[in-house]
Amino acid sequence: MTTPIQNDRFLRALRREPLDRTPVWFMRQAGRYLPEYRATRARAGDFMSLCRNPELCAEVAMQPLERYDLDAAILFSDILTVPDAMGLGLSFAEGEGPRFADPIRDPRQIDKLPVPDPNVELRYVMDAVAAIKRALGRRIPLIGFAGSPWTLATYMIEGGGSKDFARAKALMYDAPDAMEALLAKLSAATSLYLQAQIEHGADAVMIFDTWGGALTPEAYVQFSLEPMAKIVAHLKRVAPTVPVVLFTKGGGQHLELMAETGCDGLGLDWTTDIGQARTRVGAHVALQGNLDPSILYASPERIRIEVAKVLQSFGNGSGHVFNLGHGITPGVHPDHAAAMVAAVRELSPAYHG
Amino acid sequence: MTTPIQNDRFLRALRREPLDRTPVWFMRQAGRYLPEYRATRARAGDFMSLCRNPELCAEVAMQPLERYDLDAAILFSDILTVPDAMGLGLSFAEGEGPRFADPIRDPRQIDKLPVPDPNVELRYVMDAVAAIKRALGRRIPLIGFAGSPWTLATYMIEGGGSKDFARAKALMYDAPDAMEALLAKLSAATSLYLQAQIEHGADAVMIFDTWGGALTPEAYVQFSLEPMAKIVAHLKRVAPTVPVVLFTKGGGQHLELMAETGCDGLGLDWTTDIGQARTRVGAHVALQGNLDPSILYASPERIRIEVAKVLQSFGNGSGHVFNLGHGITPGVHPDHAAAMVAAVRELSPAYHG
Repeated sequence: MTTPIQNDRFLRALRREPLDRTPVWFMRQAGRYLPEYRATRARAGDFMSLCRNPELCAEVAMQPLERYDLDAAILFSDILTVPDAMGLGLSFAEGEGPRFADPIRDPRQIDKLPVPDPNVELRYVMDAVAAIKRALGRRIPLIGFAGSPWTLATYMIEGGGSKDFARAKALMYDAPDAMEALLAKLSAATSLYLQAQIEHGADAVMIFDTWGGALTPEAYVQFSLEPMAKIVAHLKRVAPTVPVVLFTKGGGQHLELMAETGCDGLGLDWTTDIGQARTRVGAHVALQGNLDPSILYASPERIRIEVAKVLQSFGNGSGHVFNLGHGITPGVHPDHAAAMVAAVRELSPAYHG
Repeated sequence: MTTPIQNDRFLRALRREPLDRTPVWFMRQAGRYLPEYRATRARAGDFMSLCRNPELCAEVAMQPLERYDLDAAILFSDILTVPDAMGLGLSFAEGEGPRFADPIRDPRQIDKLPVPDPNVELRYVMDAVAAIKRALGRRIPLIGFAGSPWTLATYMIEGGGSKDFARAKALMYDAPDAMEALLAKLSAATSLYLQAQIEHGADAVMIFDTWGGALTPEAYVQFSLEPMAKIVAHLKRVAPTVPVVLFTKGGGQHLELMAETGCDGLGLDWTTDIGQARTRVGAHVALQGNLDPSILYASPERIRIEVAKVLQSFGNGSGHVFNLGHGITPGVHPDHAAAMVAAVRELSPAYHG
């Protein structure tokens, strides 16, 4: 039996258990908006060298916790580690997005893709989980994460980022069986990957579905939600007490279906009213979000007003993890993130107890 | 009394009057996917030179009608003509997006911005409307258009395209009165601009709210929908019989509020199910959309299947204008657009009469 986590507000909010205040963390909290992150990153060299260095991963994961009174830490890594471990050759050119040296250009490549052993090909991620966990001690929970199968598939087929997903959607519409095979493989790989993160110390996991919102409702269910549901089902078998959060950016119209997967929480972007979302699905899942990250470009006074609106919209009681609606952007001043965290701590107790 | 338009299916669908089949046109139908467009564009020089040449505007507006049996033509122009006429200095660098030489960097600039006279500073657009109308004769209706005030404001403040609208949102949150003043000016300018397009021959008008979907629901209502509602109200006073269509990309959660503006139709992107949208607002407005433009990268057989799904989702009766959910993309083969148009013509009569 391990020692309990000292501040478990994040986990209790996901279980919708009574709390004294709303927990808060924010997506990409270890990131470029922090000068200390940029310094560590410069020492590491390129982005993947940072991801492959467990001690530096722990260093950057701890940096936001030194500045802010946060209720969760998150693994420092990238969603594309899984396709990289499948042999596609990931790199990040400075100032550009991710690139795969060997993208999927022919459906016949799909059968040959291996399902990576997370303890072998993704050992460096497991070492990062363990290193961050050691650095954290039992203070607050650690969140593990992965990309959704559909999101990974888009990068694997396009070879990098894309505006309209021309290749990925052409494959999806013209060769749905091949796309299903790719997604099944990614669901299997991601299930093992997140299970291994839990075994190495992650206290909760989150699946980032960055591009599910680019699909029609019908295609979303078949090609994004179903593969995520398989991962949730696997995790609920092997680690039933570990909360799972699903986040589909632009998925505000699909919350009811997402909640049916058996996940514990839904991440919301800022285009959905969190109070309305609670009315729709709050009896089944917790909600995480959803301040517009661009509000952090406004003044601390305005940030406080907008934090208050999100808290008020969710309303009384547990089941809310305060967060941004997407990752914090590099141009935000760290003091503005501090204003957000302070506002949640000061204003949220009124909605509890 | 002018001669009636020979094929007025588009206008009748917007009025939800009985029809024999579903009308079809598509956003950006005069565009780079057509080799004949690229040839005319090359002759014109840069993009704004094309927009400023009424005869060439008519040439490119007519090109898709030569290839496809479409039920509407649309003005060839750009949404940023209005801020350009306000003195911001619009240009398009090759391969890049729009740029303003003099973006709004200080709220004090806003008071000095003129409201352009559409018959003077935007004379070239009115001449383009008239030239296209002459070329069309009375065959099919001509759609005029403008950008939404919020969408225009983002470009005016950012100086061009943006990923996160950092400057525009900072102004909106920190100086909402200044933003309201800018939007009021843009509403006034756009009201006059669309009125003038109608006076020069536009049979319907559409407002493109490309970036309204980037706002929180509360900010959307205040900063995007309300300024559009003012334009609708103006047009309904001066030209009550001319249909007005509102299109907010990513606005699927706001359809009920959009319908309350008094507009005649709503454009839908592909992330909303059109049948569900009809259930929500079909008693008040027509719906235009909403095939995922990336489906045009798939095979003609698959395009036909997906067109059938959109038609079936909308269901029986009038009130549907078939379209893509966003502009056609440059990489699409013209024959694939033909497959879409043919499928609408062949499959839609089953839903009428």
